[in-house]
Amino acid sequence: MSQRSGYRLADLAQQFDLELRGDPETLIKGVATLAAAGPGQLGFLANRLYRRRLSECSAAALVLSAADADDWSGNALLAADPYVAFARIAALFETIPEPAAGVHPSAVVDPSAWVAESARIGPHCSIGPRSRIESGAALGAGCVVGDECIVGADCHLIARVTLVTRVRLGARVRVHPGAVLGADGFGLAMDRGHWIKVPQLGGVVIGDDCEIGANTCIDRGAIEDTVLGVDVRLDNLVQIGHNVVIGDHTAVAGCAAIAGSANIGRYCLIGGGVGIVGHLTICDRVTLTARSLVTSSIKAPGQYSSGVPLQESRQWRRNAARFRQLDQLARRVLKDHDPNNN
Amino acid sequence: MSQRSGYRLADLAQQFDLELRGDPETLIKGVATLAAAGPGQLGFLANRLYRRRLSECSAAALVLSAADADDWSGNALLAADPYVAFARIAALFETIPEPAAGVHPSAVVDPSAWVAESARIGPHCSIGPRSRIESGAALGAGCVVGDECIVGADCHLIARVTLVTRVRLGARVRVHPGAVLGADGFGLAMDRGHWIKVPQLGGVVIGDDCEIGANTCIDRGAIEDTVLGVDVRLDNLVQIGHNVVIGDHTAVAGCAAIAGSANIGRYCLIGGGVGIVGHLTICDRVTLTARSLVTSSIKAPGQYSSGVPLQESRQWRRNAARFRQLDQLARRVLKDHDPNNN
Amino acid sequence: MSQRSGYRLADLAQQFDLELRGDPETLIKGVATLAAAGPGQLGFLANRLYRRRLSECSAAALVLSAADADDWSGNALLAADPYVAFARIAALFETIPEPAAGVHPSAVVDPSAWVAESARIGPHCSIGPRSRIESGAALGAGCVVGDECIVGADCHLIARVTLVTRVRLGARVRVHPGAVLGADGFGLAMDRGHWIKVPQLGGVVIGDDCEIGANTCIDRGAIEDTVLGVDVRLDNLVQIGHNVVIGDHTAVAGCAAIAGSANIGRYCLIGGGVGIVGHLTICDRVTLTARSLVTSSIKAPGQYSSGVPLQESRQWRRNAARFRQLDQLARRVLKDHDPNNN
Repeated sequence: MSQRSGYRLADLAQQFDLELRGDPETLIKGVATLAAAGPGQLGFLANRLYRRRLSECSAAALVLSAADADDWSGNALLAADPYVAFARIAALFETIPEPAAGVHPSAVVDPSAWVAESARIGPHCSIGPRSRIESGAALGAGCVVGDECIVGADCHLIARVTLVTRVRLGARVRVHPGAVLGADGFGLAMDRGHWIKVPQLGGVVIGDDCEIGANTCIDRGAIEDTVLGVDVRLDNLVQIGHNVVIGDHTAVAGCAAIAGSANIGRYCLIGGGVGIVGHLTICDRVTLTARSLVTSSIKAPGQYSSGVPLQESRQWRRNAARFRQLDQLARRVLKDHDPNNN
Repeated sequence: MSQRSGYRLADLAQQFDLELRGDPETLIKGVATLAAAGPGQLGFLANRLYRRRLSECSAAALVLSAADADDWSGNALLAADPYVAFARIAALFETIPEPAAGVHPSAVVDPSAWVAESARIGPHCSIGPRSRIESGAALGAGCVVGDECIVGADCHLIARVTLVTRVRLGARVRVHPGAVLGADGFGLAMDRGHWIKVPQLGGVVIGDDCEIGANTCIDRGAIEDTVLGVDVRLDNLVQIGHNVVIGDHTAVAGCAAIAGSANIGRYCLIGGGVGIVGHLTICDRVTLTARSLVTSSIKAPGQYSSGVPLQESRQWRRNAARFRQLDQLARRVLKDHDPNNN
Repeated sequence: MSQRSGYRLADLAQQFDLELRGDPETLIKGVATLAAAGPGQLGFLANRLYRRRLSECSAAALVLSAADADDWSGNALLAADPYVAFARIAALFETIPEPAAGVHPSAVVDPSAWVAESARIGPHCSIGPRSRIESGAALGAGCVVGDECIVGADCHLIARVTLVTRVRLGARVRVHPGAVLGADGFGLAMDRGHWIKVPQLGGVVIGDDCEIGANTCIDRGAIEDTVLGVDVRLDNLVQIGHNVVIGDHTAVAGCAAIAGSANIGRYCLIGGGVGIVGHLTICDRVTLTARSLVTSSIKAPGQYSSGVPLQESRQWRRNAARFRQLDQLARRVLKDHDPNNN
């Protein structure tokens, strides 16, 4: 809920540079979906498929495009991109729990660590040797910052985040609970029947404005660093192996996994559950649909996919069984068409 | 181990309403598998495939069906569903570590939070503003409850569980370590080359008797809530996106992922590693086999699958390569059979 | 960084039993990749594909094979397995953050637990009833050890690790942040429309020298234990179901999932994102490529795969659609070749 009693529609229009249509004195006390918005609430229409629902909408006002506004007789804020405009306005109504100012008495800070006066360190946090917490940064309850880490200005570690060692966050990075940055990469060498551990001497570098989801893991590099550019967005339960490099503005959906030393371009959209094997390169502006597996480099922008469609299990089993014969079947078909083909 | 010296077989029969065959004075001190059960131990036979092992079994007594009992000359408890009966009896021998009564002195409770007198709050927990912990609820070590959360009566947060914000648990919900409920959903809008965050203003509502596995994530809704019905069971490392709705009694196995705004029915069985893309609907009583990917709504109950079978890699590579030509091959085959088909 | 000013090349050769070529007085102050290594740094060449880069390398010295040494005129340490030798040397330059000696005053230790004098327990740890922490073991900040657990000699729980109940670690086990060992297995029985929980009475047994990745989950057994042999290596976000048994020296890459009661052999290599369904057996020395799904037992060593290749989405969609007809297509093709085949 808003900390205030509400916002005048005219004030919202002015603050977000939107065209107002209707009553400028309308008071907006909250936001809601198109279907649920009622008196005092601002809704939005971003997907034209829902345009037919406008007639049933009882929102105090809507954010929508000029084109869609013809079908809506109520108060409106007209936006070139209604979703972006709505996102900006909705932020006014967000309340983010933040630890109280200062260092909570239950937190443990190593004498060699440095914490800015304006930083906030929550209960049961610990800050290790030689780490720095910059101005305006906030650590929620139970965060563990190891040694030689930097939490940049205005970062927000929501709660129970772990930065293990040599993790450097830029400004305004937001990390969700359970995320682990800077754990050892999975480096092993087989030596006469027994694994030996390859020391992981690198760190993790995260650019400004990145967001890291809950229970996501980003390993530190073996020798050099694992690197995320600026404005990279990772969803929950994502795995980023050691020495991966991800370009600016790339977004990675939940449960995706990027193996060691892969190099991902800028403005890529990595779908949920996608797997990317190690030591390959993906160029800028590649979209991978959900659950695709990438086993070799991608050199052209575009959308890529793998997998087979869902079917009723009985039918699927028959088709799947035939997959085992696919090469043999193909040879027969091709031979029929080209007698020289064996 | 049991807190008592054991249970008389006759007492077990009476307590769980089972027919006893054999010596009612047999003392049961523990439970074991069919193969391992020895003197003093109760075993069970739930899968008829193991019936032939009855002759070698040396259990003090067995839980089994009347039909299978003919092959077993020892003491028995006869049950319509032996697995269910065994599960109930085994619970007598379970010891669950619980935090001591009261609020541990190392826990931090916001002055505006409310904790029932009978609730137990373990070491290094923190309870945020305006949250409520109801009677009989137990929080193990290191749990973080953010703001405006409700932990219902007799809930058990085993340890190191995070409820971020606006998470409301019904009664008797059990949450395993590392689970994160109520983190921000993955809401992004692209604005002139830079992502902006779409505020996540909703909460998470979990019905009575749900169970949430270790390191599982359930994001809070963007505007409305993410909702689990009653008796929903999630295994470990499951990802539930914002605004997902899951119906009563649905079970989701490990590493499955359900993307934002998907609507899952009642009594569904979602296999391990299944992926479900966002904004679709799955009706009641749908079973999805392990690792299936669902990309469109399912309107009929039944079992569904996707994927291709495992093969020795050399053969697999040949078949997989042919998949790239599958449409072309199909066209040739169909053309052979129907000259009008191009 | 090394705690010392550096190592003489001659001393490294002697300590690791390697043949030295060049100036024995060369001072090595750190390690680096082949491409980045400069003065004072030791690089290595393990992959012959990079041999052509030797001419541009300015490392103070290199670890490489005698065969590759012909192309390198600088200082060298000759090794039969350069990667193994490099891993051993690099460990000299590793600094691992460790909790201070003794039990941190903020830690909570149950009176019935036992902690060796030489063990180190970090801030905000809690140790439950009847658990033992053996000599030389180190627990970083925020670890939770439940009841009846054993942390073996010289184990290292990096930070925020949870051992729930009846978890016994051998010697020198390393567990990364967020890992949860000993949570309840996913045991459910359907009883008249409502799930009942099957008590999970077993524990987890981890052999010597195992490594468990960040946010990985290993459930405790239903009746008997979940067991990892010695020198088993699990990457991040891996799921190990109850009663799984994994043989010695097997390595499991990130996001793989092994369902309940599966039995995995020794020296297996389980690729990233692999799924293994429950109650099956995989023999020794099986390699599974990334994202394979195993649905039946594997009885012969070798490499196995499943899945279909990535394609540009438009082409992929056509091929994937044909997969639904694969059985029908196969029948036509086979009928053409054998009129007796229907």
